[in-house]
Amino acid sequence: MIKLFSPEFDQVSIVLVGTTHPGNIGAVARAMFNMGLGRLVLVQPAKFPHSEATARASGAVQVLSDAIVVDDLASAVQDCEFVIGASARDRNLPWPMLAPRSCAEKVLAMPGQKIAIVFGREHSGLSNEELALCQYHLQIPTNPKFSSLNLAMAVQVVVYELRMAMLAGREDAESDDEGLALAKQSDVEGFYQHFEQVLTDMEFFTPGKEDILMLRLKRLFARTQLETTEINILRGILSAIEKKMPAL
Amino acid sequence: MIKLFSPEFDQVSIVLVGTTHPGNIGAVARAMFNMGLGRLVLVQPAKFPHSEATARASGAVQVLSDAIVVDDLASAVQDCEFVIGASARDRNLPWPMLAPRSCAEKVLAMPGQKIAIVFGREHSGLSNEELALCQYHLQIPTNPKFSSLNLAMAVQVVVYELRMAMLAGREDAESDDEGLALAKQSDVEGFYQHFEQVLTDMEFFTPGKEDILMLRLKRLFARTQLETTEINILRGILSAIEKKMPAL
Repeated sequence: MIKLFSPEFDQVSIVLVGTTHPGNIGAVARAMFNMGLGRLVLVQPAKFPHSEATARASGAVQVLSDAIVVDDLASAVQDCEFVIGASARDRNLPWPMLAPRSCAEKVLAMPGQKIAIVFGREHSGLSNEELALCQYHLQIPTNPKFSSLNLAMAVQVVVYELRMAMLAGREDAESDDEGLALAKQSDVEGFYQHFEQVLTDMEFFTPGKEDILMLRLKRLFARTQLETTEINILRGILSAIEKKMPAL
Repeated sequence: MIKLFSPEFDQVSIVLVGTTHPGNIGAVARAMFNMGLGRLVLVQPAKFPHSEATARASGAVQVLSDAIVVDDLASAVQDCEFVIGASARDRNLPWPMLAPRSCAEKVLAMPGQKIAIVFGREHSGLSNEELALCQYHLQIPTNPKFSSLNLAMAVQVVVYELRMAMLAGREDAESDDEGLALAKQSDVEGFYQHFEQVLTDMEFFTPGKEDILMLRLKRLFARTQLETTEINILRGILSAIEKKMPAL
């Protein structure tokens, strides 16, 4: 049997808190199904089930019929390892912030963990108490002249980024299969140590500046995602320098 | 006066063809304004202006009141240098395809050009004749089990990516100002020549394999986008090797 939803999202719930308009619930269900998500949790919806929700879901009825209704956010997220709350307002609390793209990367980096992404009421969002239940706050970049996104639109952007991150992950998995192998971190570390040793033997470092220079070099190579063959070439060059160097 | 819309989008129009539900027109206006776009063109809308459009626009009334209504797509795009058409269906025509992210990068790479992004009817999309007026077709990645996106949601995803690309462009511009300068191509070439010279002097190359090895090294460094300070460090290391090497 072919699955209706993407298996990568089996443990990812979209939680809507205190939604006033049932049409928005339906539009969220449709957006979720479009992007391959199926788990919807509703905290005290004003009207649900409702014909407007069903109409706007436009075929995503499975998501609506599977939706779980609970009394408060704490119950909705009690078994979740990771909770992200959408926050439109700038708050004075210095809370760790995510944009939709970094949110999606974080979620996909935690397979098997139970994750909730929480969206607040149409007019007032999430309360400070509700936001305090979230490890991260999520903010969608908008025009500062008109920043209030429709609820379903906000969910659409977030689940779209989840799908993009999921597809990128599948591509990576495929290219791994093709053996275009990225070097393992331990091999990269081995290259750094070898590089540092050669630079030390060459008396290249200004005393006391070793760490900062190595940091700059590591930053440069970290950007490339070195492949195994590249590590082999670079270490070959380092070995050649060692051999040519007099009296090492 | 502070502008309502992002100047980067002054020449970018969203064109809706044959929209049936006025609510969708309002939701599109809101999504556009949220992401900083203001130019909406309607080709034969079923009902416009309409109270439902105004209600769903929820404050984005300026976009609606500035909207231009025309009779056919050809008139809508006649003064555009670049036309992109959303296409949900797989077509047998081998047309150049864009995803929302690559579409946004393309649009931002053409400042000052008049650009139209065209979305079709709710149930039947754009006709083949209309798609033939577009240089590129745009497809939003969706769940193959439920691929039909709501019209306003599709626009939301596309204008969100436009905003993300615009913000990335502004950040690049800022970091250029701060002088976190990427190296000029001529400096990168100078580094490659220096590197090749040192490897030659070290007798590192297997005869006949110089070009392929240099190509591999260039491919590695090309991925990093070397900064000027990094070029200086790398050339410093090369010079130190030359000095330490006996009888060069």
